[in-house]
Amino acid sequence: MAMVSVSSNSTLTITELAQKVRDAAYQLSRTDIQQRNQALRCAAKALRAAEAEILAVNADEVAKADVSSAFKDRMTLNHDRLEAMAKGLEDIAGLPDPLGKELASWDRPNGLKFKRVSVPLGVVGMIYESRPNVGADAVGICIKSGNGIVLRGGSETHLTSMAIHKAMQQGMSDAGLNPDSIAMPSDSDRRHVMEMLHAVGIIDVIIPRGGYSLIRFVQQEARVPVLAHAAGLCHTYIHQTADFEKARKVLANAKMRRTGICGATETLLIDESIAKELLPILVSDLQKLGCRFVGNAKASQIASEIELASDEDFATEWLDAVLSVAVVKDIEEVIQHIVKYGSGHTEAIIAEDEKAVRYFMDSVPSAVVMWNTSTQFCDGGEFGFGAEIGIATGRLHARGPVGIEQLTSYRYEVYGNGQVRS
Amino acid sequence: MAMVSVSSNSTLTITELAQKVRDAAYQLSRTDIQQRNQALRCAAKALRAAEAEILAVNADEVAKADVSSAFKDRMTLNHDRLEAMAKGLEDIAGLPDPLGKELASWDRPNGLKFKRVSVPLGVVGMIYESRPNVGADAVGICIKSGNGIVLRGGSETHLTSMAIHKAMQQGMSDAGLNPDSIAMPSDSDRRHVMEMLHAVGIIDVIIPRGGYSLIRFVQQEARVPVLAHAAGLCHTYIHQTADFEKARKVLANAKMRRTGICGATETLLIDESIAKELLPILVSDLQKLGCRFVGNAKASQIASEIELASDEDFATEWLDAVLSVAVVKDIEEVIQHIVKYGSGHTEAIIAEDEKAVRYFMDSVPSAVVMWNTSTQFCDGGEFGFGAEIGIATGRLHARGPVGIEQLTSYRYEVYGNGQVRS
Repeated sequence: MAMVSVSSNSTLTITELAQKVRDAAYQLSRTDIQQRNQALRCAAKALRAAEAEILAVNADEVAKADVSSAFKDRMTLNHDRLEAMAKGLEDIAGLPDPLGKELASWDRPNGLKFKRVSVPLGVVGMIYESRPNVGADAVGICIKSGNGIVLRGGSETHLTSMAIHKAMQQGMSDAGLNPDSIAMPSDSDRRHVMEMLHAVGIIDVIIPRGGYSLIRFVQQEARVPVLAHAAGLCHTYIHQTADFEKARKVLANAKMRRTGICGATETLLIDESIAKELLPILVSDLQKLGCRFVGNAKASQIASEIELASDEDFATEWLDAVLSVAVVKDIEEVIQHIVKYGSGHTEAIIAEDEKAVRYFMDSVPSAVVMWNTSTQFCDGGEFGFGAEIGIATGRLHARGPVGIEQLTSYRYEVYGNGQVRS
Repeated sequence: MAMVSVSSNSTLTITELAQKVRDAAYQLSRTDIQQRNQALRCAAKALRAAEAEILAVNADEVAKADVSSAFKDRMTLNHDRLEAMAKGLEDIAGLPDPLGKELASWDRPNGLKFKRVSVPLGVVGMIYESRPNVGADAVGICIKSGNGIVLRGGSETHLTSMAIHKAMQQGMSDAGLNPDSIAMPSDSDRRHVMEMLHAVGIIDVIIPRGGYSLIRFVQQEARVPVLAHAAGLCHTYIHQTADFEKARKVLANAKMRRTGICGATETLLIDESIAKELLPILVSDLQKLGCRFVGNAKASQIASEIELASDEDFATEWLDAVLSVAVVKDIEEVIQHIVKYGSGHTEAIIAEDEKAVRYFMDSVPSAVVMWNTSTQFCDGGEFGFGAEIGIATGRLHARGPVGIEQLTSYRYEVYGNGQVRS
């Protein structure tokens, strides 16, 4: 059945394909959670059953791709990675149902009763680069939340993504659901992206996953609303009341655990009253982990390892073993710095004074604010969402990690007994 | 102070103006509710103090406008209408604070504590036609919710809107707040609209209020997300188990209370098993109120007052004393009809069978579903929101009436004690 669906899509435009997804998504929105969980388990099973086929297609694409070795690593699947994808789908099946939840209820003096109840968003347009697992995760989240999805993955792994997509559709069919709520164009033509970005009223939200230039392109061109973060320029601020041991441990993790993720700290801000004592220790800690440093004049005067930073450096998301350092007068300077250079993603304060923490959290205009912990915790899994499809720094709809709950909307139910409006 | 601000804006582009609003909105987001309520009360006072000036400017604009008498009525202010605007601001001051609310909180096994806390959206771009009260209401809602606002009203009442805007800014100044969070370009050039629609990252959301063509234009051109409804093609369905007296009372109100509002019922769907008995009564009721009818073949066979409808008629939002009528086989036909012709706004079922009600509510993909009551209740005030800035039929962010709470986003607060990510 999945095969039929895939092959028949080859003549459709993205808009026609998405309309078909929309119709199937409406059917999916009326299913119960047992059916959707069953589809997730069946999809995991179909993925495991197709392992040989998927890995063969993938090996062929990896061999043919003329890209860097880091890129090849990201596009490569193997038994363990495929198993992790299948396990991920089963984990999503174990999460609570995000649909039909009573979010609020109240009565009015005229006797009308109101309820706000969660419903699916509709159709998600997922645009991602050549990391085939991103497609499987996104499909799993959409099945769970009753949404349709149009997938457009990177061209280097298009055939791998198609093979995964086929297994996902098989899972839907095996569970007795319409597989058309999951769709992928049959070729990787770039015009599909533009068509998705303009499919107002057919695709409800675009979620791009990938590098800065992809995200910026999507944000600039899309007419459909976008949930994304273009940058993750996260700050860790060490307040004068910080516990030095916590500060050392947290900063090392925030900067160096993984330098390439959006939640990695890029800039250290530190109160000048403690910088002379603490900064050299921090620099020594991080240097041992392979980090290098740029910083403002006050910082480089304290530690000679810190090169003088340009204004541009403080606006740079390094995604690498580099830390920008600013020694600051006080918390006001910190807030100004973050407002000026931040990307609205995640900021942390290391402090023992709770009043400073409160002031920091209320003043920093970012999606996530943290106290005495690592900015690398900004992740749907670490938040307890079970799975994430992206992280958003805009303020409309979802902010921060985007999980199953964030892919829902709501409707109002109004219960009357013949009331009319005067 | 307000004067200085207004006059200094005359040389700014909309983007520059909106950036100034953004900076002031950030300051506003850090104020407490007492200050914002005080600003609302001061704005009401300033509006009353400026009555003579505002009414004189308005009378002049009304006299000069070359428009229909209905249009003139909408653009006209008088003592009562101005007093209603001032009272509206005071009412908003009496509503609960939408900011800083703990929306959710949970702990993770590693000891991290999470809170989701409401914060302002940022900057609202309000585009409206020549109804000056819309601007004052929108400003009130934005002050309360800590948002900045860029106003762009209809050109026929530009000077009236400017005079109101001046009073609103005066209210901010009188309460010791920065008046720059409320801005209006000093002329009514149409290019301002386009610039607002493209101000990604500076304006967070566009809210258009006006006729279908304005809304469609905004939805098609905007790069900034839009909260709106282009149409309100609402249905009332009378199920075979309906209480006839409730059905008569509710339908008369839903169709005829005010025919020009988006929550007015445009189409009656009625089960054929009761149509022969009930439909002639309904037609007679509504005819006495001045309504005329188009309908499907089954309907016009039952009541000769019902002209045969075209397919297009069922897709038409009459906004007038016209009712489309379809006699239907069953609830499945109703759902198909609403999916095909509806605008996702508000639908009502009149029934005594609760299972039918449940099925209807779960199956109809609209923002608001109602039982035994009038679709004209779809209004922020009637929902208990206190005030509304619009109604949205999209699924991202807010759906249904958009009030103060819907103009908020949230941030995550994460509380740790030195935890690092493994």
